[in-house]
Amino acid sequence: MFAVTILGNNSAIPTVDRHPTAQVVTCNDQLLLIDCGEGTQVQMVLYKIRRSRIKHIFISHLHGDHYFGLIGLLNSLSLLGRTEPLIIHAPPELEPILQLQLEASYTQLKFPLSFVALREEAAGVIVQERDLEVSFFPVKHRIACFGFIIAQQRRKRKIILEQALAYEIPSAFYTQLQEGADYQRKDGVLVKNNWVTLPPAPGKKYVYCADTIYDEELIPHMAGADLVYHETTYLNALAERAAERFHSTSVQAATLAARAGAKRLLIGHFSSKYTELQPFLDECVPVFTNTELSIEGATFLI
Amino acid sequence: MFAVTILGNNSAIPTVDRHPTAQVVTCNDQLLLIDCGEGTQVQMVLYKIRRSRIKHIFISHLHGDHYFGLIGLLNSLSLLGRTEPLIIHAPPELEPILQLQLEASYTQLKFPLSFVALREEAAGVIVQERDLEVSFFPVKHRIACFGFIIAQQRRKRKIILEQALAYEIPSAFYTQLQEGADYQRKDGVLVKNNWVTLPPAPGKKYVYCADTIYDEELIPHMAGADLVYHETTYLNALAERAAERFHSTSVQAATLAARAGAKRLLIGHFSSKYTELQPFLDECVPVFTNTELSIEGATFLI
Repeated sequence: MFAVTILGNNSAIPTVDRHPTAQVVTCNDQLLLIDCGEGTQVQMVLYKIRRSRIKHIFISHLHGDHYFGLIGLLNSLSLLGRTEPLIIHAPPELEPILQLQLEASYTQLKFPLSFVALREEAAGVIVQERDLEVSFFPVKHRIACFGFIIAQQRRKRKIILEQALAYEIPSAFYTQLQEGADYQRKDGVLVKNNWVTLPPAPGKKYVYCADTIYDEELIPHMAGADLVYHETTYLNALAERAAERFHSTSVQAATLAARAGAKRLLIGHFSSKYTELQPFLDECVPVFTNTELSIEGATFLI
Repeated sequence: MFAVTILGNNSAIPTVDRHPTAQVVTCNDQLLLIDCGEGTQVQMVLYKIRRSRIKHIFISHLHGDHYFGLIGLLNSLSLLGRTEPLIIHAPPELEPILQLQLEASYTQLKFPLSFVALREEAAGVIVQERDLEVSFFPVKHRIACFGFIIAQQRRKRKIILEQALAYEIPSAFYTQLQEGADYQRKDGVLVKNNWVTLPPAPGKKYVYCADTIYDEELIPHMAGADLVYHETTYLNALAERAAERFHSTSVQAATLAARAGAKRLLIGHFSSKYTELQPFLDECVPVFTNTELSIEGATFLI
């Protein structure tokens, strides 16, 4: 399972049915939280996200609509009895903000909390696990801001069925074949794993571009992604305002996705001034067909 | 108009339909916000509270469920174009927390923000306006915590209608009579205001007791209040746990309201462990008849 669930799709001013940015990525058996605007913990309850399964939280930048919900989530996780470590990847100014709030209430979280500081000069891989790799890259916004590449690593080698049958390997051994084991036949023949399997299929890639001005330097990060999230704060008529505020428009996001050869594009961070979202899709699709609106509660398979 | 609207009635862990503590008091033409848990700004949109009409915000204490929504509200007020000053009355540790968050995003609020530090030794009147007086008092909780007394000051003198008619004062002058003016008759007689009016009726009083352990020292503050809000985190069976955590039960709140001679009691801050609220009422009413549940979105006239 590799998928992203949208918990918030709005820009700065939240309203009843449009929350500030938060997304949960499901990668095999763990959940990753990207950004955590105010109200994220309640959205998690509403959409049945198992908060306890989150180990890594990524905060793109310190505009409030991307992190004001974090302190409340940490508090609730502690009250709910979490004891597993939690790692927050964020610009370094976040740590003292959270610490000050914990100190003001004499709160001792019941789980170990650690911080990984995102700094432009250190861009690259920040999480490397058996079936997951996360890296970050700087994007151009009004303050320090980072995008994330989440790559699902496939572990299982692919069995070449006709070869496995020809060597008379029992199907009970297939799971071990997928994990790279050789097979010792009773007649003394050692069947080497690479005679009957191929390397794991390449993993899939989700690229989260955070809040950003239109920037062609994002193209290499987006290249070949199975799914790209790119903000579209404004429709194309407000391209000038978008540039002033270091945000993007529908057409700009679609243009980058097309030039990067991404497979699909997910758009969000819609300005509160728009009550209808369909026009965003109407402007993107002619430029990049496989565009989808980030709708709260929706899950997109990657 | 003197009323309180409930925006949140839950204790620490919020859920979809039970938000952390926040209340809006309408006093004549202004709104006062008491506590501001996460999600308060969206509750204000949902219940059509005119955020721009808030001038004073009161934060009882720095447990997150009473203030995590404040920074988001301030941000949104600024983005919405507010320019009028805003005054926050809170324990002094709140100011650096908010400042650090504003600095991290290089945010300059578009309105003047000032802080009044609540310290136990200074308990007393903090707002004194033409038609409103607010004072605060310490309550016993795990950290520094304060209750508030909001008194509506009546301005208009009461006209003694038969006297006004006897002196042949035209009804067009009644508004001025209410404001204390004498009436000069054409025949030369000066009708003194106190011949035809009585002093303004005494104002009404709302007492907000914040998060508190059962404490008989609250009785003098609650005495004679038209409406008292007192927390009931637990039902009576958990009186021991309530005491350990410096919270109260249903029966304890009702007992204090009865002993103080309050007119009505409003209960809230229900633990998330309770899915049904009716049992709180069932336990209070036998002890204090005029008890009401704080239901989100409900407005109680004072």
